[in-house]
Amino acid sequence: MNPLSALSIAEIRAALKQGAISAREIAQQTLENIDRLNPSLNAYTHITRERMLSEADHLDRIRAKGQTLPSLAAIPYAVKNLFDVTGETTLAGASLFSDRAPAKQDAWAVGKLAAQGALLSGMLNMDAYAYGFTTENSHYGATRNPHDTTRIAGGSSGGSAAAVAAGLVTFSLGSDTNGSIRVPSSLCGIYGLKPTFGRLSRSGSQPFVASLDHVGPFARRVRDLAAVYDVMQGTDIEDRFQAEKPITQTESLLPRGQQGLRCAVLAGYFQQWCNDEAKAAVQQVAMALEACAEVELPQAELARSAAFIISAAEGGNHYLPQLRSQPERFEPLSRERLLAGAMLPAAWYVQAQRFRAHFQQQVLPLFEHWDILIAPATPCSATRLGQETMRINGADLPIRASMGMLTQPISFLGLPVVTVPLKTASGLPIGLQLIAPPWREDLALRAAYALEQRGVANCSLPTKQG
Amino acid sequence: MNPLSALSIAEIRAALKQGAISAREIAQQTLENIDRLNPSLNAYTHITRERMLSEADHLDRIRAKGQTLPSLAAIPYAVKNLFDVTGETTLAGASLFSDRAPAKQDAWAVGKLAAQGALLSGMLNMDAYAYGFTTENSHYGATRNPHDTTRIAGGSSGGSAAAVAAGLVTFSLGSDTNGSIRVPSSLCGIYGLKPTFGRLSRSGSQPFVASLDHVGPFARRVRDLAAVYDVMQGTDIEDRFQAEKPITQTESLLPRGQQGLRCAVLAGYFQQWCNDEAKAAVQQVAMALEACAEVELPQAELARSAAFIISAAEGGNHYLPQLRSQPERFEPLSRERLLAGAMLPAAWYVQAQRFRAHFQQQVLPLFEHWDILIAPATPCSATRLGQETMRINGADLPIRASMGMLTQPISFLGLPVVTVPLKTASGLPIGLQLIAPPWREDLALRAAYALEQRGVANCSLPTKQG
Repeated sequence: MNPLSALSIAEIRAALKQGAISAREIAQQTLENIDRLNPSLNAYTHITRERMLSEADHLDRIRAKGQTLPSLAAIPYAVKNLFDVTGETTLAGASLFSDRAPAKQDAWAVGKLAAQGALLSGMLNMDAYAYGFTTENSHYGATRNPHDTTRIAGGSSGGSAAAVAAGLVTFSLGSDTNGSIRVPSSLCGIYGLKPTFGRLSRSGSQPFVASLDHVGPFARRVRDLAAVYDVMQGTDIEDRFQAEKPITQTESLLPRGQQGLRCAVLAGYFQQWCNDEAKAAVQQVAMALEACAEVELPQAELARSAAFIISAAEGGNHYLPQLRSQPERFEPLSRERLLAGAMLPAAWYVQAQRFRAHFQQQVLPLFEHWDILIAPATPCSATRLGQETMRINGADLPIRASMGMLTQPISFLGLPVVTVPLKTASGLPIGLQLIAPPWREDLALRAAYALEQRGVANCSLPTKQG
Repeated sequence: MNPLSALSIAEIRAALKQGAISAREIAQQTLENIDRLNPSLNAYTHITRERMLSEADHLDRIRAKGQTLPSLAAIPYAVKNLFDVTGETTLAGASLFSDRAPAKQDAWAVGKLAAQGALLSGMLNMDAYAYGFTTENSHYGATRNPHDTTRIAGGSSGGSAAAVAAGLVTFSLGSDTNGSIRVPSSLCGIYGLKPTFGRLSRSGSQPFVASLDHVGPFARRVRDLAAVYDVMQGTDIEDRFQAEKPITQTESLLPRGQQGLRCAVLAGYFQQWCNDEAKAAVQQVAMALEACAEVELPQAELARSAAFIISAAEGGNHYLPQLRSQPERFEPLSRERLLAGAMLPAAWYVQAQRFRAHFQQQVLPLFEHWDILIAPATPCSATRLGQETMRINGADLPIRASMGMLTQPISFLGLPVVTVPLKTASGLPIGLQLIAPPWREDLALRAAYALEQRGVANCSLPTKQG
């Protein structure tokens, strides 16, 4: 049989059903791969070995009885360490939380996946508090990019992207406030989905910016991404930010591909603040999706500033009690940003929220003409660990803040985005954002599937691992 | 025929239909009354004489043709001067706006009333920017209480309450952010409705605090209040704060009275911060509504503080450009409050909004047991113009800020409230809040109607006018 990393969700489930492999064997292979490869990647902060084996044994008993297997039976996965996992400490990347009591129950999303038979392998590294785009964590160490371990994996869900890109798990969960799913999926060369704001329940995940936080999945195949997203849908009455929307079974819609989708390229800001490799990738996707037109998002820079203000103010407010009592325990890369955010004038925050409503009203009419807007997910491919600046558009930009400059205005709008991986001339991957109208994750997934089917998007495993 | 002030909406409409009076006669009588009484009240900042006569003539032509009369045919009314009226300057009580261009169209609410044949007599005085509880306006003068012209009418919709209490119009419109409908209706002895937050469109009214502003009507009869409210309902796609809710024809539900309503008295904070007259009024209403139980709203003081923070921050943000460029044109009683509000730390504002969501979640379960919660609308009856403090619960409280201390926590929750007028031993009126669950204005109106029918609530015209 092929190695697990070469198999899709459907293939693993079929192999399990036919008895070609047991759930326990899948769990054991997964844990062995993690033990072997994680030391050089630092994607995991904790491996949930016992839980995974116990979940696997439970599935094998179901199988032995001849009962129907659930939709994610024996699929190995892992979650960003800001999701609650029963009996484990939710770190949110912060040493501040290292002595926190273990979680009493799974986060909503984890519960949904567990109920469908997925096998949890562990919890994944991230920027502290989800505040960053590089996963260079001062306490838990940097996560390394599987395609070149001297480079960043992106962040804040760096561990989630690296674990999937390295083939350690079939999928993973992350969160995205300003780009934390899209940036690492771009730099690690995999698919990522940031759903519409309010679509998926965030219950049981550590909040960062309540009015901007999203959760979502990573995968190496579009069909797997859609299958996991479909399982995560549903209304959670505990999550007051969640909008009640009917469940759309997106996986079944994928075969429609790009048929009938009206696609355009985002111009202006989104072409200005990226390098030639990113522009070349946009051209490839534009050609494949027959996107002839260019569209402007006016005031995208203002949107980015407003997203910064809201993030700093809400993040600062959230951590203010601990910033007062234990400032020495904070991530040094974020402490001053959080303190400054808490002390911003209230008028700035109010204005940023007012601008958000205005900006949404300006942008929504675009979707009367377009189903998919195309933009780079990052200004360039992965930079080196420890590198402070990157040269884009003739300017030296600080990497930790600017790697998300093309994702921030889009999450500020709350729009659903699928990130698709392309290869640059240098061999490193780069991701493109396929941006859809609110609540139309299905359109972005269909466009991504079309690109994958035609080989335009490509999610190959790192060459060293083969 | 009785004077107009003695007639209900149904009676005026009937008289018009029968030809006992013409619309033009109604308009003329109204304008004469305003000319005679307004100088001592200062309720109006502008009389829309020509519009009123023209609207009346239009109705008389409809009548002459034998066409059906609309539901508010020839009913005289006036609006707080923060509602747009075509061709007039929307002052919002601010000299800052005195040179503003005239409004190009009616506010949503005014348009609804005009479409139903109501006759607009003018625009009414208020605290500048709707920021205050006394209508002591430094530029446009204080509005005087019709029951005692040495006393305040309350605010910020002081002109709206005074014009109705004096019998100048059958109803009026005001706005309520922290108590600006309920405080003046209490001090002027009339009925007022602050609907559920998000129920009525605010389009075309000058904003003060976007996340707390409500619009609503004043009247001397519960049936009239319900009839006007019913006309103002409906979805306005322009108002992004409006929630789409089905229209409830509340007027037709009034005859049900208090039948089956489970009523309780708010204890703790709401009994602590009012004088004996207010307590006696609560007792009268409690007895009439068979409210035996007392209920606590935990953290009501915190709710008031949070409402202050949100008001100052959003109000400060709203006026910041003019505070920077023309500070000398600001109401001196508010300028520093607005400036300070704009500079509050963002963390305070975010925390206040977080507390609001928490407080709502704590309070909503109360309505599983209760349909109506009873509390005073003001700590005492109307104080004297120019008076700075009032003695309540052994403390000297600043009147301008504290007259709304019992209304602020309730609007912070967004709950619908009808204020009903009672008489105190001193002869001055005082109002009680009948607080209902979200979207259940009908319950509060039914309880108010029961109190009116039995003479517990009483809205007599000032004795001097008789």
